[in-house]
Amino acid sequence: MKLYDLAGSEDDRRTSPYCWRIRLALAHKAVAFQTEPWRGVEKDKIAFTGQRQARIVPVLVDGDTTIVDSWRIAEYLEKTCPEASSFFGSKEGKGGVKFVVHWLDHIIYPILMQIVCVDALKVSHDKDKAFFRNKWEYLHGMVIEEFAGGKHVPELQKALEPMQLILQEQPFLGGTEPNFADLAVAGNFAWARAVSPIQLLEEADPVYAWRERMFTRFHAVVHPTIGYQHSLLPAQQQDVAATDEAQDQHKKGPQSGIRLTAST
Amino acid sequence: MKLYDLAGSEDDRRTSPYCWRIRLALAHKAVAFQTEPWRGVEKDKIAFTGQRQARIVPVLVDGDTTIVDSWRIAEYLEKTCPEASSFFGSKEGKGGVKFVVHWLDHIIYPILMQIVCVDALKVSHDKDKAFFRNKWEYLHGMVIEEFAGGKHVPELQKALEPMQLILQEQPFLGGTEPNFADLAVAGNFAWARAVSPIQLLEEADPVYAWRERMFTRFHAVVHPTIGYQHSLLPAQQQDVAATDEAQDQHKKGPQSGIRLTAST
Repeated sequence: MKLYDLAGSEDDRRTSPYCWRIRLALAHKAVAFQTEPWRGVEKDKIAFTGQRQARIVPVLVDGDTTIVDSWRIAEYLEKTCPEASSFFGSKEGKGGVKFVVHWLDHIIYPILMQIVCVDALKVSHDKDKAFFRNKWEYLHGMVIEEFAGGKHVPELQKALEPMQLILQEQPFLGGTEPNFADLAVAGNFAWARAVSPIQLLEEADPVYAWRERMFTRFHAVVHPTIGYQHSLLPAQQQDVAATDEAQDQHKKGPQSGIRLTAST
Repeated sequence: MKLYDLAGSEDDRRTSPYCWRIRLALAHKAVAFQTEPWRGVEKDKIAFTGQRQARIVPVLVDGDTTIVDSWRIAEYLEKTCPEASSFFGSKEGKGGVKFVVHWLDHIIYPILMQIVCVDALKVSHDKDKAFFRNKWEYLHGMVIEEFAGGKHVPELQKALEPMQLILQEQPFLGGTEPNFADLAVAGNFAWARAVSPIQLLEEADPVYAWRERMFTRFHAVVHPTIGYQHSLLPAQQQDVAATDEAQDQHKKGPQSGIRLTAST
């Protein structure tokens, strides 16, 4: 399978929370996949998907089949890889997973974006910088530098309360094993790790230990990518202050993708 | 089975969201039960439960077995009534249900309490009024009248967003049938209906239609209780302006409980 995966200033810096949840989902299903680093302005490259106006990733191509949208991709993988560990647990469990995903996308992600926005702009690809700035300044009605930053971290920690409580009772949102809710939330933290050095969680937070468990379990897809030190997991690149330096350090020829055999 | 159920100014006004979720849960499991109207100051009456300091309801008594705490009661009913419609769907689904319950208790309930607090004080039993005021003013650090009211309704509607989104896709949080997440959230709305005339939801809100479905399905346990008109479901008592009037209207001898054969 092939995943079109939003990349930032370097090909190995993967900067979309929605792509991240599919990277983790593919690893969870133990599916071998290639990724194609993609930038937001490269609309033509995914024109084949038939998306009308907005052309967005993740896009998953499996032989003749193309699927757009992370939830649809999850449903596709659940159907086509039924033998692997389940995303939803059961038909009845699917509503709970989707609830967590909505909570993530509509409560947690906006706060995270407020925190990392300035940093995310810095590590976005030069081709995407204008688009990125315009989009977020349009949404917030102010310049990015005004609304972004670590001042929103306490708000994030408070909003994570329902998750903190669950993780005091069980190791994963899915119970004894991760389900798609875990993958989606971990995808947000993997994205934050890729774009910003801002520390989001206290070590005493149950979410911190959970993130360790997730990043360790999905080491094979997280570790090879560029990011900041957010947890005990070794980062490929630490404490990079500025984009230009990062680009100097990581000058590479264009890559057609990373072949990964995902760990289970 | 017998449920100790917090009551307000009248025996038939049931004023605890946590008791409400168990009323609905018993109905969901099609269990016949009696309720015992209980007031917060009546600590001695539930001393037999062995709770050490705080003595709280719901308390469920099933023969020789006494269970305290709404989640433990739910687990007990799920185990003892396995043939009835499931609360959790599956072992894997239970985490999602618990997540929704945490979200409800820690995000939604505090906002609801902010909205209805003044009204809830009015319809609390005279025996409980001082306790109620002290508790909430201690928690908020200000007099109830300062923090409460309809001004928090937009905040509630915004916080309900994850639920609105799920309900655009399926009729209940549990999918095609309600699960314990539905019962818990509906219990909060049943409590709000019991204590305050403030309208919480717009008719266009998917949560409004869901509440209609829940109140209609659980008509047999909701309708006989006193409350305000919050939905299309007939209310036993509408638009009561003041507690004193309400008490005059509903002067009844003490009741030992309502015998209900719950509808399914």
